[in-house]
Amino acid sequence: MAKGRVTLPIETGMDEEIKELMERLGADAVRNSDGTELPEVASELFAKVYSTYFPARGDNLWAKSRPNDRTHFYLMSDRVTALSEEPLEIDIMSGYFDQQVKPDTTVDLERMWQAHDRTTGALLPFDAWKLGEDQRTVTILNPQIGHVYTVNFFAQQIWDSTQMYNYITNDWHLDPKREKEMPFDVRVPESWEHMKQQLQVWCEAHPEVDVVRFTTFFYHFTLVFNQLGKEKFVDWFGYSASVSVAALDEFEAEYGYRLFAEDFIDEGYYNNPFRLPTKRYLDWLDFQHRFVTSRAAELVRITHEAGKEAIMFLGDNWIGMEPYGPHFPEVQLDAVVGSVGSAATCRMISDIPGVRYTEGRFLPYFFPDVFNPEGDPIGEANRSWLDARRAIVRSPLDRMGYGGYLSLAVKFPEFVNRVEAICAEFREIHENSGGIRPANAPFKVAILNAWGRKRSWQTHMVAHALWYKQIYTYLGVLEALAGLPFEVEFLSFDDLTEGVPNEVGVILNCGSANTAFSGGERWADPKLQQTIRKWVAEGGAFIGVGEPSAHAANGAFLQLSDVLGVEREIHWSLNTDKYFNEAVEHFITRDLDEDFDPGEGAGDVFATSSDTQILAFKDGSVQIAAHDYGLGRAVYFAGLPYSSLNSRLLHRAIYWAARREQRFELDWVCENPACEVAYYPSERKFLVYNNTEETQATKVFGGGKEYHVHLAAAGYHWGDVENEAI
Amino acid sequence: MAKGRVTLPIETGMDEEIKELMERLGADAVRNSDGTELPEVASELFAKVYSTYFPARGDNLWAKSRPNDRTHFYLMSDRVTALSEEPLEIDIMSGYFDQQVKPDTTVDLERMWQAHDRTTGALLPFDAWKLGEDQRTVTILNPQIGHVYTVNFFAQQIWDSTQMYNYITNDWHLDPKREKEMPFDVRVPESWEHMKQQLQVWCEAHPEVDVVRFTTFFYHFTLVFNQLGKEKFVDWFGYSASVSVAALDEFEAEYGYRLFAEDFIDEGYYNNPFRLPTKRYLDWLDFQHRFVTSRAAELVRITHEAGKEAIMFLGDNWIGMEPYGPHFPEVQLDAVVGSVGSAATCRMISDIPGVRYTEGRFLPYFFPDVFNPEGDPIGEANRSWLDARRAIVRSPLDRMGYGGYLSLAVKFPEFVNRVEAICAEFREIHENSGGIRPANAPFKVAILNAWGRKRSWQTHMVAHALWYKQIYTYLGVLEALAGLPFEVEFLSFDDLTEGVPNEVGVILNCGSANTAFSGGERWADPKLQQTIRKWVAEGGAFIGVGEPSAHAANGAFLQLSDVLGVEREIHWSLNTDKYFNEAVEHFITRDLDEDFDPGEGAGDVFATSSDTQILAFKDGSVQIAAHDYGLGRAVYFAGLPYSSLNSRLLHRAIYWAARREQRFELDWVCENPACEVAYYPSERKFLVYNNTEETQATKVFGGGKEYHVHLAAAGYHWGDVENEAI
Repeated sequence: MAKGRVTLPIETGMDEEIKELMERLGADAVRNSDGTELPEVASELFAKVYSTYFPARGDNLWAKSRPNDRTHFYLMSDRVTALSEEPLEIDIMSGYFDQQVKPDTTVDLERMWQAHDRTTGALLPFDAWKLGEDQRTVTILNPQIGHVYTVNFFAQQIWDSTQMYNYITNDWHLDPKREKEMPFDVRVPESWEHMKQQLQVWCEAHPEVDVVRFTTFFYHFTLVFNQLGKEKFVDWFGYSASVSVAALDEFEAEYGYRLFAEDFIDEGYYNNPFRLPTKRYLDWLDFQHRFVTSRAAELVRITHEAGKEAIMFLGDNWIGMEPYGPHFPEVQLDAVVGSVGSAATCRMISDIPGVRYTEGRFLPYFFPDVFNPEGDPIGEANRSWLDARRAIVRSPLDRMGYGGYLSLAVKFPEFVNRVEAICAEFREIHENSGGIRPANAPFKVAILNAWGRKRSWQTHMVAHALWYKQIYTYLGVLEALAGLPFEVEFLSFDDLTEGVPNEVGVILNCGSANTAFSGGERWADPKLQQTIRKWVAEGGAFIGVGEPSAHAANGAFLQLSDVLGVEREIHWSLNTDKYFNEAVEHFITRDLDEDFDPGEGAGDVFATSSDTQILAFKDGSVQIAAHDYGLGRAVYFAGLPYSSLNSRLLHRAIYWAARREQRFELDWVCENPACEVAYYPSERKFLVYNNTEETQATKVFGGGKEYHVHLAAAGYHWGDVENEAI
Repeated sequence: MAKGRVTLPIETGMDEEIKELMERLGADAVRNSDGTELPEVASELFAKVYSTYFPARGDNLWAKSRPNDRTHFYLMSDRVTALSEEPLEIDIMSGYFDQQVKPDTTVDLERMWQAHDRTTGALLPFDAWKLGEDQRTVTILNPQIGHVYTVNFFAQQIWDSTQMYNYITNDWHLDPKREKEMPFDVRVPESWEHMKQQLQVWCEAHPEVDVVRFTTFFYHFTLVFNQLGKEKFVDWFGYSASVSVAALDEFEAEYGYRLFAEDFIDEGYYNNPFRLPTKRYLDWLDFQHRFVTSRAAELVRITHEAGKEAIMFLGDNWIGMEPYGPHFPEVQLDAVVGSVGSAATCRMISDIPGVRYTEGRFLPYFFPDVFNPEGDPIGEANRSWLDARRAIVRSPLDRMGYGGYLSLAVKFPEFVNRVEAICAEFREIHENSGGIRPANAPFKVAILNAWGRKRSWQTHMVAHALWYKQIYTYLGVLEALAGLPFEVEFLSFDDLTEGVPNEVGVILNCGSANTAFSGGERWADPKLQQTIRKWVAEGGAFIGVGEPSAHAANGAFLQLSDVLGVEREIHWSLNTDKYFNEAVEHFITRDLDEDFDPGEGAGDVFATSSDTQILAFKDGSVQIAAHDYGLGRAVYFAGLPYSSLNSRLLHRAIYWAARREQRFELDWVCENPACEVAYYPSERKFLVYNNTEETQATKVFGGGKEYHVHLAAAGYHWGDVENEAI
């Protein structure tokens, strides 16, 4: 069995165990974790040595020497209602954590701060409010009774958000060596020079390190804590903490217009990814993307010149890097490493272009919350692997690894056995596939939303892979696609200006109404509607999930209700009788042997005519529908949380919509939806794998043949097209 | 036992049974039904005789002589998408019933018809489309591919909608004597003269009739059938069938602007009551209300001159009458009679001002669908009575009655026994109350929406009392109030221009987002928000149900989220952590001994701060909340379908919000929510009644005393404040 492709977290005081584990897992790289030191044995292990590196925090000596050069936030105060006509005092720090946030009152307040009447939406003139001597009370001088007011303020970020989280969570206040790390802004020329010098110095001082793991670069995603030191607001994609006077000035010089506080505050929604992005905000992303990637490229160059690899952790201070942005490849990173929480997050890493390799950090972390007598580390490892494997088969991560304290893991020998097997299986996928990806359907599946390529595999995400009641129904589509035999592309509405790209066979539009993912008022654009209708009518395929094309206008809520054959009742058309409620049998639902689970999907959906084929109907609402439209087809799902069965429904729906249902079994598929198969034409092999923790039997259909396979729990089997028993 | 207050439907061939039943039920009036003749015995019964009368239908001789003077509809064709650039043919009659609807192609098409591009919302120029020789195909000459087109057409109503419904439902095509009744338009001068003359002639020819029951006057509510002769669209409040060339011309002359087809079509929503009414549509209502009531007043005058009473059936051709409109009392009707489907529909009848008396037609109808061996006529009678009694106690109908075929009912002697008891109980309420209404709380409860007084007891209604999944959650509020000890007022947003009326103690705003009932974009008005905030902060009370004040703008979805202490997550603020999920005990929920039932109420509701008291929390969502606001209070319910328990919750919520909770038991209430009590101060009596079909025991609190009462199923008890055993 070959070795390699595995990174192991190591620590001091267990040299012999490290050596044994390296051997058993076939690890060829070691790393420290946040807060652990590499042991000296590292350099003797015939392995690459990774070390974390923080360019913009962790250097408090420097940070303290530049007290005004912290990174900054734009933040909004509470919404405060004037209940009289007396001057209204707003404590802007109410609800914020004063160890993280410090209002920056040194700037030109008229230019950098704002106060709004949120009842009228009006920006208040500068002389309508004043900042108190306490530097945190803003007084609205002549409020209108019954109006709501807010203050947009500019603030220093005086504690790095991730280090703060780790510090608070792990009780580091008990450790006198721990400092609260203050972030500093790369846009300050002196800090930038310092960062470069420090990296050079560090590289020279650490000859044992082969790989510098940047964690990450300069600006943290939006993560703001409340007065109790608990999370108040989190946006894994948020740019609120990327602002500075210098950046705003440079933006203005370059773009010819200025951004103000409200451009970032966005009525308090902070341009989170569910909001339709404005042109101004997209300009800011572009501006910071170019800046951040150009700076990161310099640090990578320095790293390379020191003879080391440079890899980036996907998260923490990653804002501006935009791994699917146009300038990301220019950074010349060797790799991206990220946490694998699901198949979709796996693809988010493995599909990143412009790097030599990608690496996934698997669950569970070797932390005490799982590695204790009540914990289930093997179960977590299995589920993580089963989720990720579907994605790895389709678009392999090049490397895998774990994180945390190895000393904890070795107390669970059965867990180590399981990890050994997973590492071997991971390598086997690479070896048996011949480095070639398995066969996909001969067309692309496109996810259409307001973000497009920039948020590839990142739609409907709030805080990385965390579960939210309002998103799992739509994340299920990504999760299914991450392991299905389709090439997936992310298109923005703007990408359709010249029509639908040729290689696209099926377009999906998924999400709840008035979000960037379903599209909201972008659907008011007749050109967009026209493009899709024309394309579908000429033989294209459209699949909507939830409230696709939703925008109440001109007598329709789902603007493409004519394409989908369904419409949603928003209580404006209760007067119209709804007669269609009989579900029929269909190719798409052939494997649906139980009630369809639409998650938190849309209710009150009805078929617009008898032409619509209803495939699932419950509680007075269409849950799945299929509809012919000209030469093309459309499919509707009320919601599609991830499950083997729902993934199969999507698989079939895509085939049906693309008019390829006759090829469904010829193109390789397992009869049992709990199993999946990948076919490698050049190797004449297929890999069939069991996505469950129970044993499964399945027929495998492919190339006109039929194979019978029995699989252990979570098991897999490599079959040979020619020699396999049929 | 006194007699009277009861109207019995009678028919030929059962004279003796009629006499006996008149005696037992204490009936003092008899009526025929639609399609039955009065027997000759009627005039010997010492009873008033009612007869139905149809001013604008039922005279086919006249109708045929004026083939172009039918009443008219404005209707919209199907939405048809152009899938090529070829001329697009739209069959405007597709989906319509050609026995009901006949396109009127005799009018000036440019002035009266319209075609729209529903993708852009644009009205097409007249030369962009043409009507085919078949008089039903409209061709869009140069459609844009991928755009949706519709035609707004003017059509004759060639069959009265209610008569058509009865005809089809009762297979009257088997009866050669039955004609399809063609409605004619009162606005045509000749028809109007004919109507008056005919009424005079009819009155003279029917000396045995004491009461002319108009069913109803001139314009039918919107009720359109599809190509299969089934209901396609029904709006009990719809004015679509009140249009004519003359009316539009007269409107223009009077109002100085013209209404066009789209003003009635409303993108296909036909201005149904869930839509925010436009100024133009309200002008039309006003215009037709003045016209219809002035014409009806003439017919009433003729009736009175003939020595007969004139009463109106609430329904069928009632459009323009607007019983809560300003001109309704000018009609000088003696009475209104309507069908009782619930407590709220009972109040809709009994609260009508400007008539001498009101009469309710109770369920069940004596029809074969209930009066058969499998039917449950007694159960239906009980449920109808229990629902209605709550309302009757609070605002008595003056009379009651039944409908249908008496010959059917007498085959169910137990049913007749029960009806006899109900009639006696009905009279007893009148007798014991001394004609005085029971005590109410000393403030008014106001329902606030875009319709106000005009739709008193008529909110959230689609087709009279029919159940719809999307409305029962809000109808529950009306249903509860109809039997609670509060004076109820219906306010429109415009009524708040000068502030909240003095006598109002609590304002309710109930409904789903973007409907006329919650208010939609009316909440964009800062003045409205200001008025309510100021009023609540000064000691007022606001109760929201569902999506109160919903209008996504300026960082809030519920515009009064600061008042309510809750906000709804519309996927724009998922990034904000929601910490509050613990329900507390509270005065409002003291009787809630099981899970709260919010019906189809709003989900994803969260408390905006720790100041909000959460009273019920489920599935990650606040279901009931209470919030102090300045000197006032607010309460939120996710939904409030009618039940004894939810009615009690509302009762308590109103008391709490009005800061009157200390008076809750002093003001008379039953400990057991399944029972209710009404207190008659001047009589020193109280009526306690059991709203269920099981026996109940309850303490009755009132005036500082406590009474113990046992009640039979559906039972009641009149207590004497002084002499009642305590």
